Amino acid sequence: MRIAIINPNTTTAMTVRIADAARAVASPGTDILERQSLEGPDAIEGPFDGALAVPGLLKAITAAEAEGAEAHVIACFDDTGLDAARAIATRPVIGIGEASFHAVTLLAHSFCVVTTLTRSAPIIEDNILRYGFAGRCRRVFASDIPVLALEDAESGAFDTISAFVEKGIAAGAEGVALGCAGMTGFAKELQARHGIPVVDGVTAAVGLAEMLVRCGLSTSRGGIWASPSRTHLLAAE
Amino acid sequence: MRIAIINPNTTTAMTVRIADAARAVASPGTDILERQSLEGPDAIEGPFDGALAVPGLLKAITAAEAEGAEAHVIACFDDTGLDAARAIATRPVIGIGEASFHAVTLLAHSFCVVTTLTRSAPIIEDNILRYGFAGRCRRVFASDIPVLALEDAESGAFDTISAFVEKGIAAGAEGVALGCAGMTGFAKELQARHGIPVVDGVTAAVGLAEMLVRCGLSTSRGGIWASPSRTHLLAAE
Amino acid sequence: MRIAIINPNTTTAMTVRIADAARAVASPGTDILERQSLEGPDAIEGPFDGALAVPGLLKAITAAEAEGAEAHVIACFDDTGLDAARAIATRPVIGIGEASFHAVTLLAHSFCVVTTLTRSAPIIEDNILRYGFAGRCRRVFASDIPVLALEDAESGAFDTISAFVEKGIAAGAEGVALGCAGMTGFAKELQARHGIPVVDGVTAAVGLAEMLVRCGLSTSRGGIWASPSRTHLLAAE
Amino acid sequence: MRIAIINPNTTTAMTVRIADAARAVASPGTDILERQSLEGPDAIEGPFDGALAVPGLLKAITAAEAEGAEAHVIACFDDTGLDAARAIATRPVIGIGEASFHAVTLLAHSFCVVTTLTRSAPIIEDNILRYGFAGRCRRVFASDIPVLALEDAESGAFDTISAFVEKGIAAGAEGVALGCAGMTGFAKELQARHGIPVVDGVTAAVGLAEMLVRCGLSTSRGGIWASPSRTHLLAAE
Amino acid sequence: MRIAIINPNTTTAMTVRIADAARAVASPGTDILERQSLEGPDAIEGPFDGALAVPGLLKAITAAEAEGAEAHVIACFDDTGLDAARAIATRPVIGIGEASFHAVTLLAHSFCVVTTLTRSAPIIEDNILRYGFAGRCRRVFASDIPVLALEDAESGAFDTISAFVEKGIAAGAEGVALGCAGMTGFAKELQARHGIPVVDGVTAAVGLAEMLVRCGLSTSRGGIWASPSRTHLLAAE
Amino acid sequence: MRIAIINPNTTTAMTVRIADAARAVASPGTDILERQSLEGPDAIEGPFDGALAVPGLLKAITAAEAEGAEAHVIACFDDTGLDAARAIATRPVIGIGEASFHAVTLLAHSFCVVTTLTRSAPIIEDNILRYGFAGRCRRVFASDIPVLALEDAESGAFDTISAFVEKGIAAGAEGVALGCAGMTGFAKELQARHGIPVVDGVTAAVGLAEMLVRCGLSTSRGGIWASPSRTHLLAAE
Repeated sequence: MRIAIINPNTTTAMTVRIADAARAVASPGTDILERQSLEGPDAIEGPFDGALAVPGLLKAITAAEAEGAEAHVIACFDDTGLDAARAIATRPVIGIGEASFHAVTLLAHSFCVVTTLTRSAPIIEDNILRYGFAGRCRRVFASDIPVLALEDAESGAFDTISAFVEKGIAAGAEGVALGCAGMTGFAKELQARHGIPVVDGVTAAVGLAEMLVRCGLSTSRGGIWASPSRTHLLAAE
Repeated sequence: MRIAIINPNTTTAMTVRIADAARAVASPGTDILERQSLEGPDAIEGPFDGALAVPGLLKAITAAEAEGAEAHVIACFDDTGLDAARAIATRPVIGIGEASFHAVTLLAHSFCVVTTLTRSAPIIEDNILRYGFAGRCRRVFASDIPVLALEDAESGAFDTISAFVEKGIAAGAEGVALGCAGMTGFAKELQARHGIPVVDGVTAAVGLAEMLVRCGLSTSRGGIWASPSRTHLLAAE
Repeated sequence: MRIAIINPNTTTAMTVRIADAARAVASPGTDILERQSLEGPDAIEGPFDGALAVPGLLKAITAAEAEGAEAHVIACFDDTGLDAARAIATRPVIGIGEASFHAVTLLAHSFCVVTTLTRSAPIIEDNILRYGFAGRCRRVFASDIPVLALEDAESGAFDTISAFVEKGIAAGAEGVALGCAGMTGFAKELQARHGIPVVDGVTAAVGLAEMLVRCGLSTSRGGIWASPSRTHLLAAE
Repeated sequence: MRIAIINPNTTTAMTVRIADAARAVASPGTDILERQSLEGPDAIEGPFDGALAVPGLLKAITAAEAEGAEAHVIACFDDTGLDAARAIATRPVIGIGEASFHAVTLLAHSFCVVTTLTRSAPIIEDNILRYGFAGRCRRVFASDIPVLALEDAESGAFDTISAFVEKGIAAGAEGVALGCAGMTGFAKELQARHGIPVVDGVTAAVGLAEMLVRCGLSTSRGGIWASPSRTHLLAAE
Repeated sequence: MRIAIINPNTTTAMTVRIADAARAVASPGTDILERQSLEGPDAIEGPFDGALAVPGLLKAITAAEAEGAEAHVIACFDDTGLDAARAIATRPVIGIGEASFHAVTLLAHSFCVVTTLTRSAPIIEDNILRYGFAGRCRRVFASDIPVLALEDAESGAFDTISAFVEKGIAAGAEGVALGCAGMTGFAKELQARHGIPVVDGVTAAVGLAEMLVRCGLSTSRGGIWASPSRTHLLAAE
Repeated sequence: MRIAIINPNTTTAMTVRIADAARAVASPGTDILERQSLEGPDAIEGPFDGALAVPGLLKAITAAEAEGAEAHVIACFDDTGLDAARAIATRPVIGIGEASFHAVTLLAHSFCVVTTLTRSAPIIEDNILRYGFAGRCRRVFASDIPVLALEDAESGAFDTISAFVEKGIAAGAEGVALGCAGMTGFAKELQARHGIPVVDGVTAAVGLAEMLVRCGLSTSRGGIWASPSRTHLLAAE
């Protein structure tokens, strides 16, 4: 099985880290296609960045399908461009935000999210409401760590995130979703430290993608994700 | 006061019709800036079209601000690109979808929406949920009229929409929101025929924009719509 | 256009202040009809006061229609008597509570309310739930300032309210709705101090009323607000 | 124990029928105080009638307390004036609308309501939302029977209501709440005919009132129902 | 009237205390049948204990019906086995958890729950959501008092619970539901100390059971609680 | 990896069919442990059957852990005993009901469920509400096919279910969850016939279980699923 992991920003260091995380959990026969946008923002911090990341993301998905990808993972916790991607892809598409909510609610009666910036928290809250997990989410914490600082081991990001996990537990959270693709390396250690499930969306999304492919399931064309008639626009861009 | 009405698709006939509707309700001192996207889809039918319309929309908003616009109306019922637009604009931005929901709930205890395509209905339902109007909305009807057929007087679109209004009334709706900018010319006649409020989002949005400007109010920078740091990306596009 | 601003309590100083606020934002051609109840409580502090204010309010609305009012604003944040008023008025009626929620949600992803008494907060929460804004409202704060103390510049009311705005921001609110008609003079200064939108319902309601009138829209008679058959009761009172 | 059953309209025939229903279920030691409004509408059909019924209702409650009532039942399915009544009464107050929702949800996983007029259904829906039973209620049916026709055995009202009960069952309702005090005599026969619980709010309210009195419980003064300071207004009316 | 009070755990001291509380509020003609499970856990602390308590509970209900019980009260705040009990009983069944939520919402606009263990709070929250009271409940507090410590006067349980009531009031609760059958003796004193309604579910359930029996109402067989066809399994156990 | 598939009823033919479905989608290295309850009902039709199935289910889970199971699937669409199972198992537990909701919402904006009996639909609706998917579910259809008739090829069950899928599509469903473990063989053919995703919970649950194991995640002990202290009760049973 071939699964494309697509970083919708242009920061290669993050792309590599994400793909490594994906490979670490993929089942033996699964080939991880490591891809990133070739245009657009170097990090997605808020809705403006998100909107400008979509054309590059959609091109990457189209290219990955040409290379035989059987499912796609969008490696941005905001699930940027997810609806457009589902419409254009012929194969299932999973966002790492939704993946982490699906996984954590199988393990924890209520959860919290620890994300990066204040401006991203409402986007995540909107998604959680739309997906149906609002009643299970105690709080979305903004850690005020810039996305790219997560790449810097000296930034103190781990301890900052860990402190928010503590706050989440105090607020009744039984599990945690790490709210940025760049936090993918922190899950195991946070889980060991706090003794509750800490979900990284990248790895959860790989498992969900494998599940859908093995079950022979793909995106419905019967409604919002019907195949678009203006796909030429993407090529023209 | 100067208000920009921005058609996020590239169909000029629709742009003209929208701007005419806006001018018909603007208060005496208000100047309507009639604008449309210079790139992207000629109609927004589903999330793929919507995503590809956003860069052109954001450029039009930036240009309108340079021309002194004090508020912006996005004339697509899906409220395409609304969050990104609010982040980049220094002045308030209103989507015609949200405008129609705000207006109709001041007049009707419950309402229905009559939109164009099946694939658009879930987008509108998502917005209604997010804005908070789900408990007030009886149903979003997809009339299966293509957006551009609304421009064609011979298409039978009026009678089709009128039949859905009847269905809405039977389902308990006390008012109607017309679910596409292209339906802006039908509101008055439908209201006369059915005897309940029929709201056109373009005209409602002009009134809301005037209200915000007169009250000295603008978009909060304290959260999701904080000013983005990557505005250069738009120019570069 | 003629819009009636009706203070449903009998305190003239508040009536004057409210009408001044309305005139400050009305568009050039709009005439503000300044009216107050001629009977009932001198302030509305809780549901008992609210219920006893309704007959006087309804009489004031009937009188204002006789004087040519094209829309009505009920200047009590509890939206006292709104349903009864909509049923009896032939023209649209806006409550300042609902007006402020509609306005602030166009500007802020989430908001808080700062009102007067503890007993009023649940009334406002009920309204917010009914209108659909519960998911957007972080908190309704009761400042424990009596309504009439807002008329007294020495009461320290401004600083008390400002402290609650700070609490709201800490709780994630991106905007504020001032929860009493008597706070109408504080909005601009609070907005300047805190740097986020602070909405006064009186001014928002004037803008919404103008919007509805210009769009040719009025209250639906198709359901809850059908014209009553016992209007003689009001005259008899 | 003495419980006041207060008909908030001025139709004596209905008052008598309601009190008879109450006496039929009261426990041996309970004395039913049969009271009605001495002013206001002869039936409550919509929010205007409801608002004008409140002063008379509040006076009747005050009088009933003077006669030793230990609890009050407001015998209008709209729960007209319930918040104001709770504020002014020193003893618990139950509305028959809320009583029927509480009772039917102890017996049926989901229920429907059959009420009188179209204009009353949204009032009931608002109450159901506010009380929390919206997820349990399949539908509020308006039978378009005027309230006073329920007093007329020849009106065909029973069969009309029975037909709506059938519709409710088809929609998945496991129980029924009869949506008007005037339907109190129909419950038993409807239950026998349809084989599912049919709840009359008058009788349910008597049982709830007895329960609260026996448990030594009364209305909280800690919030919305704090004792009002303007009770003189009621006397003055 | 005969009402069975069934303690679904095997701790006789608690059974006695519960039955005493029930008798203290039962109306003169009501006979309280005091019963407990003959097998299963000695306290219900979490979902595992709850599941293993159900067979014994169902047997006790079957036995109580044979002794002429006209209604049943399940005296565990988790409402353990309520759906299964309603299916097998021919008479109405009330859980003390639901009883307390029904009672407190007739008295308090919002309430809090003070229960025993952290693991029980989410069960109660799930029930509150399912019954519809989530919008009225400010918080479910876990006091971390083991169920059986409530039997021990020296345990300091009363003061611990009282401190949580204070927290609830600070969070806006106007009333309290005591979240364990073992707290039944604390309600009156807590109510006196804090001045707001404090509801004990055992006594509320007795009143609700009397109400249903007097109104001639019983569990619907039209859906989830249809009579099971495998009742032999219970005997076989 | 070893995953236990546990049929909580005692019908071996169904156990075999479920395990076959599981094996068909398991990834190469996964060993499916095929288990069923050794006591309790032969089918789970409603809450009474469900409650009596739990002890046998819990014993099967304990036994499976002793045999090295790394995750457990409860193969009953009601998710019978899920909370108790999570508390006692040291490894993750997935219910096939929840599994199908998680899977279908990754593929369809809205979905319907086709289950067996009328009495089971409210159980499923309760679960959907609790898990958060209520806003995504258009309808739970009861086909009135007894569970064991699904084993009989001559029963016409396939066509009956197919007709309900049509109804679901007409109601706006973009995908379907098959609401009984016994329907596991129908998914592929229904999907081919109707052209939208048709999810079988057994196969989805296997994929989710693999995902959790590969990600190193297990059930939180921080709340509702804390390890019980009365595990001796299970052995004693």
